[in-house]
Amino acid sequence: MPEKYKVKDISLADRGKLAVEWAEQNMPVLRLIRERFQKEKPLKGVRIAACMHVTKETAVLMLTLRDGGAEIALAASNPLSTQDHVAAYLAKEGIHVYAWRGMSEKDYFAAIASAASMGPDVTMDDGADLTVMLHKVALGEARGIDYEIGSKVLSSSIVEKIRGGTEETTTGVIRLKALQKEGKLLYPVFAVNDSLTKFMFDNRFGTGQSSIDGILRATNILLAGKNVVVAGYGWVGRGIAWRARGMGARVTVVEVDPVRALEAYYEGFYVTDMSSAAETGDVFITATGNTDVIRAEHLLKMRDGAILANAGHFNVEISVRDLERIAVGSRDINENVREYRLPNGRKVYLIGEGRLVNLAAAEGHPSEVMDLSFANQALAVETIVKKWEKLDKKVYKLPRSIDNRVALLKLKALGVRLERLTEEQKKYLESWSG
Amino acid sequence: MPEKYKVKDISLADRGKLAVEWAEQNMPVLRLIRERFQKEKPLKGVRIAACMHVTKETAVLMLTLRDGGAEIALAASNPLSTQDHVAAYLAKEGIHVYAWRGMSEKDYFAAIASAASMGPDVTMDDGADLTVMLHKVALGEARGIDYEIGSKVLSSSIVEKIRGGTEETTTGVIRLKALQKEGKLLYPVFAVNDSLTKFMFDNRFGTGQSSIDGILRATNILLAGKNVVVAGYGWVGRGIAWRARGMGARVTVVEVDPVRALEAYYEGFYVTDMSSAAETGDVFITATGNTDVIRAEHLLKMRDGAILANAGHFNVEISVRDLERIAVGSRDINENVREYRLPNGRKVYLIGEGRLVNLAAAEGHPSEVMDLSFANQALAVETIVKKWEKLDKKVYKLPRSIDNRVALLKLKALGVRLERLTEEQKKYLESWSG
Amino acid sequence: MPEKYKVKDISLADRGKLAVEWAEQNMPVLRLIRERFQKEKPLKGVRIAACMHVTKETAVLMLTLRDGGAEIALAASNPLSTQDHVAAYLAKEGIHVYAWRGMSEKDYFAAIASAASMGPDVTMDDGADLTVMLHKVALGEARGIDYEIGSKVLSSSIVEKIRGGTEETTTGVIRLKALQKEGKLLYPVFAVNDSLTKFMFDNRFGTGQSSIDGILRATNILLAGKNVVVAGYGWVGRGIAWRARGMGARVTVVEVDPVRALEAYYEGFYVTDMSSAAETGDVFITATGNTDVIRAEHLLKMRDGAILANAGHFNVEISVRDLERIAVGSRDINENVREYRLPNGRKVYLIGEGRLVNLAAAEGHPSEVMDLSFANQALAVETIVKKWEKLDKKVYKLPRSIDNRVALLKLKALGVRLERLTEEQKKYLESWSG
Amino acid sequence: MPEKYKVKDISLADRGKLAVEWAEQNMPVLRLIRERFQKEKPLKGVRIAACMHVTKETAVLMLTLRDGGAEIALAASNPLSTQDHVAAYLAKEGIHVYAWRGMSEKDYFAAIASAASMGPDVTMDDGADLTVMLHKVALGEARGIDYEIGSKVLSSSIVEKIRGGTEETTTGVIRLKALQKEGKLLYPVFAVNDSLTKFMFDNRFGTGQSSIDGILRATNILLAGKNVVVAGYGWVGRGIAWRARGMGARVTVVEVDPVRALEAYYEGFYVTDMSSAAETGDVFITATGNTDVIRAEHLLKMRDGAILANAGHFNVEISVRDLERIAVGSRDINENVREYRLPNGRKVYLIGEGRLVNLAAAEGHPSEVMDLSFANQALAVETIVKKWEKLDKKVYKLPRSIDNRVALLKLKALGVRLERLTEEQKKYLESWSG
Repeated sequence: MPEKYKVKDISLADRGKLAVEWAEQNMPVLRLIRERFQKEKPLKGVRIAACMHVTKETAVLMLTLRDGGAEIALAASNPLSTQDHVAAYLAKEGIHVYAWRGMSEKDYFAAIASAASMGPDVTMDDGADLTVMLHKVALGEARGIDYEIGSKVLSSSIVEKIRGGTEETTTGVIRLKALQKEGKLLYPVFAVNDSLTKFMFDNRFGTGQSSIDGILRATNILLAGKNVVVAGYGWVGRGIAWRARGMGARVTVVEVDPVRALEAYYEGFYVTDMSSAAETGDVFITATGNTDVIRAEHLLKMRDGAILANAGHFNVEISVRDLERIAVGSRDINENVREYRLPNGRKVYLIGEGRLVNLAAAEGHPSEVMDLSFANQALAVETIVKKWEKLDKKVYKLPRSIDNRVALLKLKALGVRLERLTEEQKKYLESWSG
Repeated sequence: MPEKYKVKDISLADRGKLAVEWAEQNMPVLRLIRERFQKEKPLKGVRIAACMHVTKETAVLMLTLRDGGAEIALAASNPLSTQDHVAAYLAKEGIHVYAWRGMSEKDYFAAIASAASMGPDVTMDDGADLTVMLHKVALGEARGIDYEIGSKVLSSSIVEKIRGGTEETTTGVIRLKALQKEGKLLYPVFAVNDSLTKFMFDNRFGTGQSSIDGILRATNILLAGKNVVVAGYGWVGRGIAWRARGMGARVTVVEVDPVRALEAYYEGFYVTDMSSAAETGDVFITATGNTDVIRAEHLLKMRDGAILANAGHFNVEISVRDLERIAVGSRDINENVREYRLPNGRKVYLIGEGRLVNLAAAEGHPSEVMDLSFANQALAVETIVKKWEKLDKKVYKLPRSIDNRVALLKLKALGVRLERLTEEQKKYLESWSG
Repeated sequence: MPEKYKVKDISLADRGKLAVEWAEQNMPVLRLIRERFQKEKPLKGVRIAACMHVTKETAVLMLTLRDGGAEIALAASNPLSTQDHVAAYLAKEGIHVYAWRGMSEKDYFAAIASAASMGPDVTMDDGADLTVMLHKVALGEARGIDYEIGSKVLSSSIVEKIRGGTEETTTGVIRLKALQKEGKLLYPVFAVNDSLTKFMFDNRFGTGQSSIDGILRATNILLAGKNVVVAGYGWVGRGIAWRARGMGARVTVVEVDPVRALEAYYEGFYVTDMSSAAETGDVFITATGNTDVIRAEHLLKMRDGAILANAGHFNVEISVRDLERIAVGSRDINENVREYRLPNGRKVYLIGEGRLVNLAAAEGHPSEVMDLSFANQALAVETIVKKWEKLDKKVYKLPRSIDNRVALLKLKALGVRLERLTEEQKKYLESWSG
Repeated sequence: MPEKYKVKDISLADRGKLAVEWAEQNMPVLRLIRERFQKEKPLKGVRIAACMHVTKETAVLMLTLRDGGAEIALAASNPLSTQDHVAAYLAKEGIHVYAWRGMSEKDYFAAIASAASMGPDVTMDDGADLTVMLHKVALGEARGIDYEIGSKVLSSSIVEKIRGGTEETTTGVIRLKALQKEGKLLYPVFAVNDSLTKFMFDNRFGTGQSSIDGILRATNILLAGKNVVVAGYGWVGRGIAWRARGMGARVTVVEVDPVRALEAYYEGFYVTDMSSAAETGDVFITATGNTDVIRAEHLLKMRDGAILANAGHFNVEISVRDLERIAVGSRDINENVREYRLPNGRKVYLIGEGRLVNLAAAEGHPSEVMDLSFANQALAVETIVKKWEKLDKKVYKLPRSIDNRVALLKLKALGVRLERLTEEQKKYLESWSG
C-alpha cells in the first residue's frame, strides 16, 4: 500500500467520530456482533480489502471487523459517495482509507488498486469493482481503465491468497454470476445482497427512502401531485415507487419482466413503456441495473422541467452521453442539479450526474437498515474465515439461519414480540394426513 | 361413479349459466386457452378428478378442460363453498359434479370418493384432500374419516393409473411435501400455488379483498378505526393486512417467522404475539396454515364484541373446539355470524363456523385473479399429459416460462405496454467487465 | 294514517330484532342517549313523521325517539333500501312503518303521504322528499308525482303545526336551501348533514366503505388494478376515492369545482373531465348530488364491460334514460346487475338501477358511523322540541357544542384518551402579545 | 430605514439568482400575476413592509410586488430560516432586506423594526410579529423585547398610515383575532392563511413534506417502522401524519379537540394523550400553535434516543426551557441536532433548537405550494390597495372567488381538465321540487 491512507482532510476526524457514534446508536445488531468480536477475535490476522461507500454506517462495520482482529484497507465504491469526515475518522482509527468525495475516475480506480495491494485474505465489494479488477489482472483481461490502473500496481498472483469475498448489491451479484457462468470466478463469494434480511430491507426501505430524500435535498420540489416514473420494479424500484406514492405522487412503473409488470399493475401503479411514460412524467428515477434506460429518444419526448435521477448502482442507467450529445447548452443550478437545454426548447434537470442519487445528494441508507445489511456482511466474513476450505469457486447465498439470527436480534432490540409455535403446532405442520 | 352428478337443485342451471358467463368475461387468459384447447384437443380421452371450490370461476376452468377433450368429475373442496347454481349448470354441461353448499363432513368425503372413483389420469386438488384420500387408501393408512369413506369406494390400485396431479394452495403444498419427505408420494404433483402468477396475485389480491368482503357481508361493521389482528404474514396474510389498512383499520400482525415479523414491522404494521394482540383487537383474521392459532387462552383475553374470522384453508386455525368448550351459551345472529357468550360475561362472534371466510360469507376470489391461477392449472394439466413420463414422484414447480406466458397474455388483455430490452441492454446484462 | 303499518312480511320481526340488537351493540353513543331519554322522556307527546332508509340502524334511532316519548310514523326514503325484517320488527314495536324493498314509485310517495298524514310536530328527512311533499301541498305547487299523491291525502294546513325538521343528506340540504332562497321554507330545519360529526364520518367513512361493499356484493370484481372513476369530490366522493385506492385501484376524480379538483390532484389522484375519463374507466361511481353526470356521450366512449354505480342520493346521476334510449338490448345478470348492449357492440353494466349502491346492493352505512349521525338526529329533535319558539324559518346548523358532546361520548366508548389543555396553554391561546 | 439592506454576504447574489429562477419555474400562477403586474402596475407608489421567511419562493413574491410598482422592506420572520444567498440577491434587486441565518433574538426584532421604519402602506406578516410590534408601539403596551426594540425606532403614529395587512399563518391569525377580540386591532388584515387554496395545500402538503424532509436532513433516520407522534391534528398536523405514514411509520396523534381526535382515529391513526404517547414514541413532532406541548413530565418518560422536532410557527411547543433545566448534559451532534442527557440516563435529541424544522433543517415549503399561497398574498395586497377604504378594522377572509381564480390558474398550468356544468345541471342544482 503506497500510503497509510488518503483522505480529503484528516482534521475532520472529530466531526466524523460524532457521526459514527450517531450511526452506531441505530445499529444495535451490529453493536452486539462488535461486542462478541471484541471478545472472540474471530478475524485475528485476517487482511480485508473492501470497496464500499465510505459512510458513517460503513465505518461501524469497519470498526466491528477491526475489533474482530482484522487489518483493513478501504476504497470508495463511488466517486461521489464518500463522507469526508467519516473517512478522516476511520484513517485515525487505523483503517487504510483511500477515499474522498469528488474523486476523478482515475483516482477512483487507483484507490481500489491501493486497497487491493494489501494482499487481502477476504474482499468486500459493493458493485464488484474491486473483485472485477482483481479478476481482470489475474486473467489478463486487458480492457478498461480498471485493468490499466490495476495491472500497474497488482500482481496476477494476488488472487491466489484470497479465501473468499462478499458482495453487497444486486448489480454486483449479476456481474459475479456472469463471471461464474463463463467459468472465470477465481474464489467463492457470498452474495450478501441475496439475504432476505438484506434485499427486502436495505434495497426496499433503505433505497426507497434515501432516493426520495436525495431528490428533495437536490431540488426541494413538491412530490404531491407529481407524475413520478420509476424504471425497474425490483426491490429497489418498488421501494421507491411505494415511497413516492406515500408522498402523494402518481407513480408509473416501467418494466421489462411481465410478471413484475403485472404485479405493479395490480398494486395500483400505472404501467407502460418508457416511450409513453416519457411524455407524462415530471420526475424519472431509474432502478434497473441496466444501461441506457433513458435515451435520446425518451429525452426528446419529455415535458419542460422534467427531472432525472438514478438509484441504480452505476451511472449508466440515464444516458448522460445522449444528454450531453443532444443538449444545446447546460449549466449547474446548484451543487447537485444540472440543467440541459434541449433542441426543442425544453429543459431537463439531471441530479448528481446520474450517479446513485441517495449517496450523491443525500447521506445514503439510514443506519437502521444498514444495521441489517452489515450484520450479514460481518457474519459473512466470519463464515469465510471459518469455512473457506469447504467452499467452491461459486456465488453463494448466506444460509437462512443467518437471516433468522439477524432478524431475531433486531426484533429484540426493537422490543417486538414474536409468536412461538406450540409443540402441537410444530407437529401439525409436519403432518399430511389431516 | 355412483351417480352422474349430485347437486342441490338442477333447475338453478340457468342462473348458473349467467354467473359463469359473467366470470368468463373477466378471465381473458383462460378464454384464450379455452379457444386453443377447442381447436387442439390436447386432453382428448384424459380423465380428470378434481376437488375444488365449486364457484363460477372453477366452472370456467372445468369447461376449458372439457373443451380440451377431458372427462371430468368434480367434488367440492369445502362444505360451505359451493355455489349451487353453478354446480347445477356444470352438471347440465356434462361435468360429474358432487357438491352442494352445507354438506355434512360425511357427505363431503363421500363426494370426493365419488369423484375419485372415476379412475382419473390426472387429479386436481385444492387443499390436498383428494390426493391424501387416494394416498391413504393406497397406503392403507387406516386413520381418519377420509380413509373410512374412501376405502369403501376406492380400490388401492386406483393410484397406479394416475399420471400426475396439481395442487392449488399453500396448505396443500405443505401436506404434499410432508408426504414426499416421508417417501410416500405416489405420483408427481405440480404445486400450482408456487407459481409467481398464482401466489403473488391469487393469495394476495384475491384472498386479501375477498376475506375483507366476507367479513363485511357477514357483519357490516365499519373497518375504519378498527384494530384488526392478522395472524400469519405469508402471501394471504399480507394481502389481508394491506386491504384492512386500505379500509382505514389499524393492523397488528402476529408471526412466528422472525424475518416476516421484521418485514411487517418495517411496513408500518404493529407486530406482537397473539397473547398481547388478543387484548386490543376488534377483529381477528387467521391466515397461517397452522392449527389452533387462536385458543382458549386468547379468547378469554378478548374485548367484548370481538369478531373472529379465518382465511386459511382448513377450519382449524381458530379453535372452535375451545370456543364451544368454554362458552356458556351461543346463538346465531345471522346466517354467517354465531355469538358465543364467555364465562367472563363478554361475547365473541365467529364468522362462517371458522371456515375460510371469503367462500363461506362471500363469493371467493374475483374472476380476474382466478384467471391467472386457473390459466396455470390448465397449463399444468396440459404439461402432465404431455410430459408425465419424464416426471418423478415429486412436488414440482411449474417452469418460469409458464409464468411469463400467463403474465404476457394478461398484460395484453389489459392493454398494458411492457418495456423491451434493446440488444445492447441484453448484452450489458450478460457482461461482467463493466 | 290509513293503516297502522304496511310492511312486506310481519313474520320477519324476530330476525329483525336480532339485526337491530347487533346494530345497537355498535352504537354506544345512541345507546347512552336512549338510556337518558328513557328516564327523562323529553319527547313526551311529540309526533314525528320520518322519511328515512329503513335499516337496522334507523331502527335504533326510532326506538330511541319512541323511548323518549314520541309517536312515530316512518316511510322509506328510497324504494330499494328497506330491510324488510327490520321494518317488520319496528311495526311490532309500535312504529307506524310504511316501507318494503322494491316499492313502486307510486307506492313510495303514497308511503310518505301516509306517514305525513299523522300530523307531525317534527319531520325527519333523508333527501327532503317528505319536506318537499309537505311544502308542495301547502304551497299548491301542482307539479310532480309527489304533489299528486300528497295532495289527495294531506291538507294544506298540516304544515302549520310543524315545529321543525331535520335533514340528513347533502342533497336534501341543497334542496332546502333552494326553498329558503326562494323565501318558501315554512318551518325551521336542522341540517344534521352539516354537523362535523356527521358529514366527516358518515359521508366519508360510511359511504366510502359501503359503496365499495355494494359494488363487490353485486359484481365480485377485483378492485386491485382497476381504473375507478369517481365523479364528485365532496365528502362522499372522497370517501369512495380513498377506499377504492385502499383496495388497490387507480382512481380518477371528475370535478366541477376548481379548488376541489386541485385538492384531488395533490392527493395523488388523476383528475380530468368525464369525457376523457369515460375512455379509460373500468368502474364509474357518481357522488355529485347533480343530475345526468354520466350521459349518452360518455356511455358511448366507454370500454367494453364498464360498470356503473351511483352513490348519490337520487337515481339521476347516471342517466338511466339515456342508457335505455341508446341500448340495443339489455338483460339482468343477477339481482343487482343489469347488462346493456350498446350500438357500438360494447356492453356496460348498471348496478342497482342507478340507485344508491350502498343501500341497493349492500346494507347501507355501518352502525358505528350511523351512531354519530343519529346521535346528532336525536339531539336535533330534542333541540327542536325545546327551542322551537326561538327558531326562524331557516336552515340551521347544529351548534358545535353538540358535535363536541357526540365526539366525546364516542371517544369514551372507544377508550381513546384526549389530551387536555393546561391553564397556561388556555391563556397562551387567548393572548396576542407573544 | 437605517441601512439600505443588511445581509450576510452580498457576494452570494449570483447563487441566489439561480435559486430564485429555479423556484419561479415551479410557480406558474405567481408568474402570470407577475406578468400582469408588470403591465398594470397596480401597486405603484405603495410601500410594503414584510416580515416573512426569506426563501427563494418569498423572493419571487417580492419581485412580483416590486414589478407591480411597490417599494419593499423585508425582515426575516424566523432567526433560522433565511437563505443567505437569496437575501443577497433580493438586496441587489433593490429590496430592503434585513435578514441573515442565525440572527440573535435582538437582531431579529431590530430587523423587523428596520423594515417597519419605512412607514408602510401595507404590512405582510408570517406569524404576526411585525403587526404585533406595530400595535404594541401604537398602544404603548410596554411588555416584551419587541416593544423595547420597536419603540426606539418607530413612532406611535406609524400605524395610522397603514391601509391594511396580510397574515400567512394559523398562529398569526389566532393572535390577530385575539387582538380584534380585545378591540385593539388598528387596521384591517386579510387572513391569507384561511383561504382554501392556502391552508389546504401549503399547511398540509407543504409543511407535511418539508417537515419530514427537515427531520431526514438533520438525522438521516429510517422512518419505516418508527413510532411517530404528531401533536396537533390541524392542517399542518394532518399533513405531517399522512406523510409520516406514507414513509412507513406508525403514527400516533395527540389532540385536544374531540372531533379532530375522532377523525384521526377513524383515519386509522393511534390516538392518545401525550403522557401515554411519550412512552412509545421514537419521533415527536409538534404542530399545535400552542405552548409547552412537550414538557418535563413527558421528556422523562421517553425512550432512549427519542427525537424531538417542531413544525409550529414559534419555538415554544417543545419546552426547551424544561429540557435545559432537567438535562444533566448536552452536546451538538451536528449542525441541527443537539443531544440532551437526562437524569434517568436516557438521551433525547432536539432538532433545530425546537424552531420550525422545515426551515431550520430544510428549505421550507416547496415552490409549487408557495405558488398558491403567494398568489393569494399578491392578490390580497392588490385588494387592500384597491378597496381599503371600504374595509373595517377586522380580520377578513379573502373571497372564495380569489380561491377559484388561483385554483383555475394552477389547474391550467398543470394541464388538468375541469368538468363543466351543463345548463340543465345548473338549473337542477338550484331547484328544490325534484
